[in-house]
Parts: sequence; structure tokens; C-alpha cells
Amino acid sequence: MKEMKFSPLFWPIKFKKEYISVLDETELPAKVTHLKIYNYRQAALAIKNMKTRSVGQVILVLYTFLLVYQQNKGKKSLQSKLEKTAAAFNCARPTLSFKYLTDMVLGWHKSQLPLDKAIYSFLNSLEEKRVEQARQIAAIVKNGDTILTHCNISGLLPLAGSFCRRQNKDINFYVTETRPYLQGARLTAWELSRVGFAVTVICDNMVAQVMKEKKISKVVVGADNLARNGDVANKVGTFQIALLAKEFKIPFYAVCPPPSAAKTGKEIKIEVRPEKELLIWQGKRIAPKKAKGYYPAFDITPYDLITGHIFLEI
Amino acid sequence: MKEMKFSPLFWPIKFKKEYISVLDETELPAKVTHLKIYNYRQAALAIKNMKTRSVGQVILVLYTFLLVYQQNKGKKSLQSKLEKTAAAFNCARPTLSFKYLTDMVLGWHKSQLPLDKAIYSFLNSLEEKRVEQARQIAAIVKNGDTILTHCNISGLLPLAGSFCRRQNKDINFYVTETRPYLQGARLTAWELSRVGFAVTVICDNMVAQVMKEKKISKVVVGADNLARNGDVANKVGTFQIALLAKEFKIPFYAVCPPPSAAKTGKEIKIEVRPEKELLIWQGKRIAPKKAKGYYPAFDITPYDLITGHIFLEI
Repeated sequence: MKEMKFSPLFWPIKFKKEYISVLDETELPAKVTHLKIYNYRQAALAIKNMKTRSVGQVILVLYTFLLVYQQNKGKKSLQSKLEKTAAAFNCARPTLSFKYLTDMVLGWHKSQLPLDKAIYSFLNSLEEKRVEQARQIAAIVKNGDTILTHCNISGLLPLAGSFCRRQNKDINFYVTETRPYLQGARLTAWELSRVGFAVTVICDNMVAQVMKEKKISKVVVGADNLARNGDVANKVGTFQIALLAKEFKIPFYAVCPPPSAAKTGKEIKIEVRPEKELLIWQGKRIAPKKAKGYYPAFDITPYDLITGHIFLEI
Repeated sequence: MKEMKFSPLFWPIKFKKEYISVLDETELPAKVTHLKIYNYRQAALAIKNMKTRSVGQVILVLYTFLLVYQQNKGKKSLQSKLEKTAAAFNCARPTLSFKYLTDMVLGWHKSQLPLDKAIYSFLNSLEEKRVEQARQIAAIVKNGDTILTHCNISGLLPLAGSFCRRQNKDINFYVTETRPYLQGARLTAWELSRVGFAVTVICDNMVAQVMKEKKISKVVVGADNLARNGDVANKVGTFQIALLAKEFKIPFYAVCPPPSAAKTGKEIKIEVRPEKELLIWQGKRIAPKKAKGYYPAFDITPYDLITGHIFLEI
């Protein structure tokens, strides 16, 4: 894999003996900066404030347990510190199921597995499985495809694009800007264009128009939570893109995490984030003071709108 | 009508003997500023740069002819100045049919009608018919309705809301922010909240989610161009809201200008505006330099997605 160009978003968290280095995704693409995380409180706050997202959150959770383990190894406090770490992550974001991760780590500890080895082994496997997921995305792409995506899938699209190139499949991308955090414009357009793919950014309200103009041949989006029936929770806006894709008969693919405990999408709670995150842009309020804002951060796309799931099997 | 509170956007252009005063809609809601327009070139530029929109453009076109008429009355140059004025407006914005307006004024002049009287008479009638349109909007609203709107209909919604209040119908509003110009967040939320209506701003990608949550009972949008078969061109994003309204069985109303020459929506050209208008926000680029932007400013909503048209009959 040496010759593949990996996006910095493919593995945005690094473990540095005494701290964890987190690529600050809120500052991209203007600045590439890294936060230093020294304890589980800082880690949970970084997740709450969306400094890292998607797979970055998973890696950060695991590395935080590793940090806590190294700081407390052999001490009586270890078990209670691990439990506090789990509790802090479990309530960080309502829609995301960190509990399956934290339960997994606590389970390893209970079974007296050496925690550091178990964590490294899990993350190595995660990395391999994600490369495999990128390969699966490439497999559904045809030469000449224009792929519409929403939000950001943490390095998987540039990697899938690299596989397509090797297979002599020429592809390009449309990206919704993805308000209010602009992950599409800031992150996805950045990671795709820096490795040479043609990327066109559109506003979230232009999806039907570009589909009608036949500019899009496939939709590929990520997922933050996969229910056991195939429903997915992803960044708000995904559901309406899926409905529009159905209207225009465009195949719609969801790149998924491992399934959560939710039986269907109805069991997944939708996180409602603070209204200021959409009403204030770069310190300036875009709406009058008397107006309110409503910001459901995710939505549920039912399984029957999804042409194909690209699973992550860990 | 004295007791009604009119939005400043209901009639955003004023004629002041030597110049035309234009409410600068690009600065709202942070600043309420007015531009002074002394000739047709400045007027066409103000339209091109979206300093005024919707009915403001119609009023500005008419007042500009009035200004040119007053400046050249009795001179040989009058006819040629009127023709140049018409030509400047005709090519100002591709999707908008100013030609029917400019042809109308040139026609009055050809028929030797006194141009000032004809213009005043037309605008008085326009004002009355718009009040009537607001009354028709109020007529379709039920007590307890929550109305979703997109972009801005220049003062008609606050006026319709006032009629509803008189009829003891309690209503409130959801407004899409309407990227990239944010007419929803900046203009509609401003004009509705300043007269006391509850307004909630959402991002353009949250429409399906708020519909699914049953927060919306009706959609009411404007239209920039009405084709003779009932298709409408309106701010991009309208079409996908209409598709989503159909999916969720929510009635969808279009508040229309007089019909243009277009037989169907297919004959209406979609204006593509400069990519920088979506890629640069408050002076800061939101996407990497290598990424492109695509900004179709309008879309066509076919007549069969429209539950009811609210016509303007002049």
C-alpha cells in the first residue's frame, strides 16, 4: 500500500506516548492544526465540539483508553479510570453509538487481556478493513462516473479514487457543502482535490437541480450509525438526498460502520445541536436576533432507499 | 390599510425626484442601508449584483424608466435613451423576464401615453394586486399552520400573516436559510420576526427531516418566472422542496408573478452565477482553491408538484 496516497483524514489521530494528537477538522482547509489531548475529559470535549468526527472519533476513543491505561497501569485506580473514560464517551453525542466501543474495551480488561495489545490489534484491523471498504467502493464505480457525496467519509473516497485510477476508471466528484459545518466544502473537497480529483462544490439546495441536469451518476455517502435492519443515521441532509436519488433513479450507496444495537432507525436518537451553530457564521449572526434556529444534526435513511450498503466487518 | 404593518421589503424602492432609493438587501439584517441610483446603468448593475430582487426589481425597472423620462422629456434623445434602458434590463438576469416589462413601457411610449402617468398607474395597480395576493395567501392558511418557505417573497408573508391575525388564525414559520445568499435567514426571518411572528431558521439540508418530524403543514414559496403551463422558476432549492413536499403529502403553494412568454418551464433559461458567490463567504474561501463551484441560481418546479398557484393579475 506504500504507493497509495492516504488522505490525512483517513487516520486523523496519532498516539504520541504522553498525549494524543488530533487533526483539528474545524480549522480545515484554511489551517492544518493539531490538538494535544492529555486525558479523557479533553478527548470527550474534542468529540462534543466536533474537532474530530467519523472514524476519528473511534480512533480517539481507543487511543484515550490506551493513554488512561498507560497512565494508571498497575495502580488501583485503573478500573475506575477506565469506567470514567467509558462514561464520558457514552454521553458525548446522542446519535453515535460509542457504547459498543467502550463496552468492548471494558470487556477486554475484564477478561484480563493486556489492554495495550488489544487496542493496537483492534486499530490495525480497523485500518485494514477500511482499506478493504475503499476497495469495495471502487468496485461499484464505473469509468466515467460522477459521484455525489455529502459531508465526509474520512479519507475513504480519495482512497477509493486511487483504486479506480489503478483500474483505469476515470471519475469525478460533486460535493454538497454540508451546512452548517461545511464538512463537504472544507474536508471532502479538500482531501479529494489535493490528490488530483476534479471536485465541484454545490450548496445543499442544488441537489435536485444537478440530478435533473444529469450531472450525477451515483451517490456515495457515509453513515454514523447502522441499525440491524439496514437503516442508517448520517449527517442531516442524507435522507433528502436519498429521496431525490430515488426520484431520479440514481443508485445510492451507504458506507457503514459496524452495526449498532439499534434494531431499526427508529431506535436511533437524533442529536439536536445548539442553534448558534447554524445562526452564527464566523462570529457574525446570519439571522435576526428574534429568529430561532433548529439543528437536528443527523437524519435516518431507511434501508429501502439504499441501493447497496458497504459494510465494515470487524 | 393604514393599520397594517408593511415589511420594508414589500416596497423596497422609492422614487426621489432626482434619484431612486434602493434598500440594499445584501446588507440585511445587520444594516439597513439605501443605494442612490441616478441612471439606468446603475439600476441594471444593482439588479445584476442582487442589491434588490423579486418585486424590487420590477419596481426599480419602472422607476428607472420614469427617471430617464424625466431627464429627457422633450429632448430628441428620449426614444433612444428609453431603448437603451430596456436593453440594459433585458440582459441583466437570464431567468427573469424583464422583457415583458420593458416592452410594455416602450409600448406605452409608442402609443403616446404620458409615460409618467402610465408608470404611476401601473405601480399603483401592482401595489393593490400584491395586497390582494397576500389576502389570497391568508385564505389558504388554517389556524395552527406552520408554513415552510424558501428564499423571500418581498413582504407578502408578513402581510399575509397580518391578515391571518385579523382572522384569529395563529400561524408560525420555518424558513430555509437559502444558501448562498441567505435570503431566508437574512430577509424572510427578519421581516417576519420584526412584526412578531415565530420564525425558525433551518439549513437547506434539513427540509426532509423537519417534514418527517411533522413540523410543517404547508409550503409557500415565491416564483420569479411563471410559464404559461403553470411551471415556475424560483430560487434554486424550490424544486427539491416541492419533491419532498409531495413525498410527505404536504400542500405546496407558489406565489406567482404575471405569466411570462415561456410556454413551459423548459423554455426558461437557468441563470448560472459566478462560483465565487458560493465558494467565498464573508471574504473567506470555504473550499480549497483547487475545487470548483457550480451555482445554478434557479430551478424549475413543474406545475404538477404545485397544489395551488397564487396568481398576480395585472
